[in-house]
Amino acid sequence: MINHFIDLRSDTVTHPTPEMRQAMAQAEVGDDVMGEDPTVNRLEELAAEKMGKEAGLFVPSGTMGNLTAILTHCGRGDEMIVGHLSHTYLFEAGGSAALGGVHPFVLQNQPDGTLRLEDLRHAVREDDPHYPTTRLIILENTHNRCGGVVLTPEYMRAVGTFAREKGLKLHVDGARIFNAAVALGVLAVDLVRDADSVTFCLSKGLCAPVGSVLCGSREFIARARRIRKQLGGGMRQAGILAAAGIVALEKMVERLAEDHRRARRLAEGLSSVKGLVVENPQPATNMVYVRLGDMVQQDAPQVAEELEKLGIKSHWVDSRRFRLVTHYWVNDEDISRTIHAFAQVLR
Amino acid sequence: MINHFIDLRSDTVTHPTPEMRQAMAQAEVGDDVMGEDPTVNRLEELAAEKMGKEAGLFVPSGTMGNLTAILTHCGRGDEMIVGHLSHTYLFEAGGSAALGGVHPFVLQNQPDGTLRLEDLRHAVREDDPHYPTTRLIILENTHNRCGGVVLTPEYMRAVGTFAREKGLKLHVDGARIFNAAVALGVLAVDLVRDADSVTFCLSKGLCAPVGSVLCGSREFIARARRIRKQLGGGMRQAGILAAAGIVALEKMVERLAEDHRRARRLAEGLSSVKGLVVENPQPATNMVYVRLGDMVQQDAPQVAEELEKLGIKSHWVDSRRFRLVTHYWVNDEDISRTIHAFAQVLR
Amino acid sequence: MINHFIDLRSDTVTHPTPEMRQAMAQAEVGDDVMGEDPTVNRLEELAAEKMGKEAGLFVPSGTMGNLTAILTHCGRGDEMIVGHLSHTYLFEAGGSAALGGVHPFVLQNQPDGTLRLEDLRHAVREDDPHYPTTRLIILENTHNRCGGVVLTPEYMRAVGTFAREKGLKLHVDGARIFNAAVALGVLAVDLVRDADSVTFCLSKGLCAPVGSVLCGSREFIARARRIRKQLGGGMRQAGILAAAGIVALEKMVERLAEDHRRARRLAEGLSSVKGLVVENPQPATNMVYVRLGDMVQQDAPQVAEELEKLGIKSHWVDSRRFRLVTHYWVNDEDISRTIHAFAQVLR
Amino acid sequence: MINHFIDLRSDTVTHPTPEMRQAMAQAEVGDDVMGEDPTVNRLEELAAEKMGKEAGLFVPSGTMGNLTAILTHCGRGDEMIVGHLSHTYLFEAGGSAALGGVHPFVLQNQPDGTLRLEDLRHAVREDDPHYPTTRLIILENTHNRCGGVVLTPEYMRAVGTFAREKGLKLHVDGARIFNAAVALGVLAVDLVRDADSVTFCLSKGLCAPVGSVLCGSREFIARARRIRKQLGGGMRQAGILAAAGIVALEKMVERLAEDHRRARRLAEGLSSVKGLVVENPQPATNMVYVRLGDMVQQDAPQVAEELEKLGIKSHWVDSRRFRLVTHYWVNDEDISRTIHAFAQVLR
Repeated sequence: MINHFIDLRSDTVTHPTPEMRQAMAQAEVGDDVMGEDPTVNRLEELAAEKMGKEAGLFVPSGTMGNLTAILTHCGRGDEMIVGHLSHTYLFEAGGSAALGGVHPFVLQNQPDGTLRLEDLRHAVREDDPHYPTTRLIILENTHNRCGGVVLTPEYMRAVGTFAREKGLKLHVDGARIFNAAVALGVLAVDLVRDADSVTFCLSKGLCAPVGSVLCGSREFIARARRIRKQLGGGMRQAGILAAAGIVALEKMVERLAEDHRRARRLAEGLSSVKGLVVENPQPATNMVYVRLGDMVQQDAPQVAEELEKLGIKSHWVDSRRFRLVTHYWVNDEDISRTIHAFAQVLR
Repeated sequence: MINHFIDLRSDTVTHPTPEMRQAMAQAEVGDDVMGEDPTVNRLEELAAEKMGKEAGLFVPSGTMGNLTAILTHCGRGDEMIVGHLSHTYLFEAGGSAALGGVHPFVLQNQPDGTLRLEDLRHAVREDDPHYPTTRLIILENTHNRCGGVVLTPEYMRAVGTFAREKGLKLHVDGARIFNAAVALGVLAVDLVRDADSVTFCLSKGLCAPVGSVLCGSREFIARARRIRKQLGGGMRQAGILAAAGIVALEKMVERLAEDHRRARRLAEGLSSVKGLVVENPQPATNMVYVRLGDMVQQDAPQVAEELEKLGIKSHWVDSRRFRLVTHYWVNDEDISRTIHAFAQVLR
Repeated sequence: MINHFIDLRSDTVTHPTPEMRQAMAQAEVGDDVMGEDPTVNRLEELAAEKMGKEAGLFVPSGTMGNLTAILTHCGRGDEMIVGHLSHTYLFEAGGSAALGGVHPFVLQNQPDGTLRLEDLRHAVREDDPHYPTTRLIILENTHNRCGGVVLTPEYMRAVGTFAREKGLKLHVDGARIFNAAVALGVLAVDLVRDADSVTFCLSKGLCAPVGSVLCGSREFIARARRIRKQLGGGMRQAGILAAAGIVALEKMVERLAEDHRRARRLAEGLSSVKGLVVENPQPATNMVYVRLGDMVQQDAPQVAEELEKLGIKSHWVDSRRFRLVTHYWVNDEDISRTIHAFAQVLR
Repeated sequence: MINHFIDLRSDTVTHPTPEMRQAMAQAEVGDDVMGEDPTVNRLEELAAEKMGKEAGLFVPSGTMGNLTAILTHCGRGDEMIVGHLSHTYLFEAGGSAALGGVHPFVLQNQPDGTLRLEDLRHAVREDDPHYPTTRLIILENTHNRCGGVVLTPEYMRAVGTFAREKGLKLHVDGARIFNAAVALGVLAVDLVRDADSVTFCLSKGLCAPVGSVLCGSREFIARARRIRKQLGGGMRQAGILAAAGIVALEKMVERLAEDHRRARRLAEGLSSVKGLVVENPQPATNMVYVRLGDMVQQDAPQVAEELEKLGIKSHWVDSRRFRLVTHYWVNDEDISRTIHAFAQVLR
């Protein structure tokens, strides 16, 4: 029997740290729907400061952060430009269209996670009744489905400048923006300076149990607060969760570098496992994508099942591919065990 | 300076109890989006059991519970029957229409919080392209805007039977269903036996910091789970919050009777304050609605300001009326102080 | 066998006049989606002029006219104030919510078709995340379900003034605005001077086969044109229909007085039929509402069936009530025959 | 001065033929909202027969036909698979998302207008709360933006079979399905046998002034009729338009071959114009796409302006490209004049 699973499915599985648990137990709270939770208010200010924005809004999930941003920037029938591999387009249940009546204009993500400026230029609609009104561009940084890659400050700025020229808004899905910042050796604020809004998650690599923060101008956040209430995201004594979020922001950012180091070690180790192709042998952040070689007869679900028997939880993204994510609760020994387990299963 | 405010604005302002804080600090958690948070799972089972339903779904707010129920029962363009004083119709930011494309057919709430069966019968639409398709009836119990009144098991059953006959669904906004049950001396399950779904709040009189539970059939909850994700209500290690919810359900229900007793004392005391008219002199549950008499020259916001100087927070619902709500953090002495404060301000 | 039916179900059943048929056959046309249909352009200008607005937009139905107005005035999640007996609220398939995400705030129509100004004042929402944003008031003139009654210029102005003060828009569902104008002896423009938009129908008492016109400011109509295209209401060589619409506007307005006269005669005649109660014995315009007396054992559908055998088509609105509508294709003799037929059936 | 423009911008500019005008002037009509317009009923039956479906529904535009189909097949939050160059995705104002809450999954159209079966297979979503539910595939035949190309009966059948296997619906945007049928030498029915619904236009190559027909099963059309009413597409004496539609279906289909012949002549002629690159030198149907060569200094709008001075109206689709469409009102001499005009302008 396995008594400690190594869970590489995602960094969303991270439990709160002991310090977070203590902070939650002692949090000073109030009714946040009335704007009176001091801990939530403190988190929102801290988050805004880290993002270089005027204001922040605590939301129960990254999906709600993105959805709230989209519904605040776009009215019914507006169009947003998104990458074909972006989380918002692929994995948020189509909420932007379903709930907000926002139409996506889908561009091909380049392998480095970017959208080409030339494509952006073509995507902006003219003023014609046949077309929706283009309103928003969404970038994702780090870009999950492109391998946890990072988009540089220069690229972010170039898109921000383009958006401003065209009268569009720029939202950054920065679920893992701190991974990007740490990997680039910059501050998160350097990546979102030209964005009108940004969402980041407290609950992934930063280990908080629940929550994300949407940041933007004061005026934007005031409108977003209404959308959050409409979606049912207005929570009462949310300071309990915010207390963990403050620890996440203050204590957990720098250590993401360890996750990246371990991801590189994992990629390196798996590169020498026969039957495995590592798609990103030098992972930019905390994600490793691997593919089963053509000669491997098992498919990914079967391999995952074998791995689980050896105490490794993995996430297969299609019948031949895996995503493996490092995080706080995965240590160096776990990396070694994982490499061995893959080798054993694919022997 | 006031060092202890008596906060009668709502029972939403309740802080968690020490026992809840301890439960949260020690909660066993997992990724609830993957269905792996054992504490959330336990809360959902417990909630379902209390409601006599097959399954439960933990959501961050009552608004999301109701919205999720509406969007699960109704497709785009369906119609739901609601009371003109119901929370869903008045105070949930129009989310049912805005996000779900659900049209409300609005009936007049009777003073006792009910919708008349005859009105319900007329409200059901025939099959004709001029009309939406009637799909859902929503009842609220206790009924907030009707004075915290309780709807009886007999009435609930009658509407449930009617709904079934017409092929409609019945959802109960049971934000304060336990107040109703305690006031009536029945079990909550007796009030929702004929409902297809029910939402109740852990965060009002029951004192949990955050969260509500939507209950219904297993099949319904499976579909509701998708809607919750789409709305952004899928939380990760939500067991932190669920731990407090379990305490709320197990330990806090019976004591609601104290809040009701105090509300009656408050109503009684305020009845003898000159210049005040108590609208419900024998409050059914934990809410007292009072009105300024015609001879009072101050308006409600002015009176509220004066009360606040005396340490009393009150909620004015319009320029002449107040709602006062008792809860765990309001004790007998607070009731006396409140009566005196009103008398002093209106002298 | 009946060789000429008297069709009193609605004025929507009116066929085009010979002059309209000729105008349609000879209409000069172009692609209206490109703005190049000269006949449509001429109709839109003429309509705008009649309504005292800057611009008009030809739409295939009154429902689309109202829906386009609502979707142009209101964004997702905005609220509109409507009467509980209004056509928009009851008979347009809930399109405002279903397609536009617009939430209705429903006020009780007074028997004279108005909404009370005091009720309007209470209906406007404060700026609070619990509420939608109030954006629009809709009045209906003549008011169909209130008996084809007319709302006076003074009332229309009072609501317009109120709307302006509150920063709201006023839309008039003027499907039968010319009936109102003729009945009042004023111009249509006198009834909609304070409205931001108005829809009227060419296809009811005015006899055109298809179409309505939405009028408003140039800027409003430019945005409405986009909504119309999105709804699929952009037609190509629509000048065919517009040609009939021009005849309707130029030749058919004054004669509505005849329909009103005949409606009065019909009401008068039916008043003396035993077993019938005429609800509006002095009809304001072209509609007569009658009710079966308590002693009549047949219900409305049965009576309607008997009437049909006698060559009379009638519209029962519920099991005891009928609406009878006069129009171009109903002459004096038809009125007499109808009165006799009712008498015969109810004998 | 030009006294006869050659209008190659689109086949939507076609005026009705004299025979159509006569049919319209004499059309027998009724109130189609009540299902009583005999000419509409006849057109709908005829259309259904031509498409091999049980029933038809007359709508004011192709956009409404497609939108109605999408909203009938898909509920809020469902997903439809569309090509990135499809009319529905690009040119219908995003109505599917804006009004229907339907999310598009966008696949790359191949140069022949098809979607690859392998891509379709990957596009179908698993049952997971992160995903919308895949519900619908849309094919376009002929495919406008791919050059008016035709999709073969074999391909259509393959996709239909795939859809059935996966429990999906297949809708065909057959705005120009008769062009496809004529070009292939098959019947239209051979192209849509495996489709659940199909829209085709009476107002393009077939010359009727207004209207399209949506066809499908009786049950589907009954539901579509409700959606049409909700959108405001329920017209009254629409038999006027339907009369022209019947002529279009009975008399105008075979002659589309002439348009195709002329398009080929036009492509051939333009191929020898210096400075022009014909993208589809052997046009499949009635569309020719040409591009300005790199050496041409004028851009497309400038060239279009020059052409207009010579009596030729053309449609530039971007700054270097034109689409030229042949139709009933373009004769052989017009083709020659067009070729000469291009040569003159680009000299």
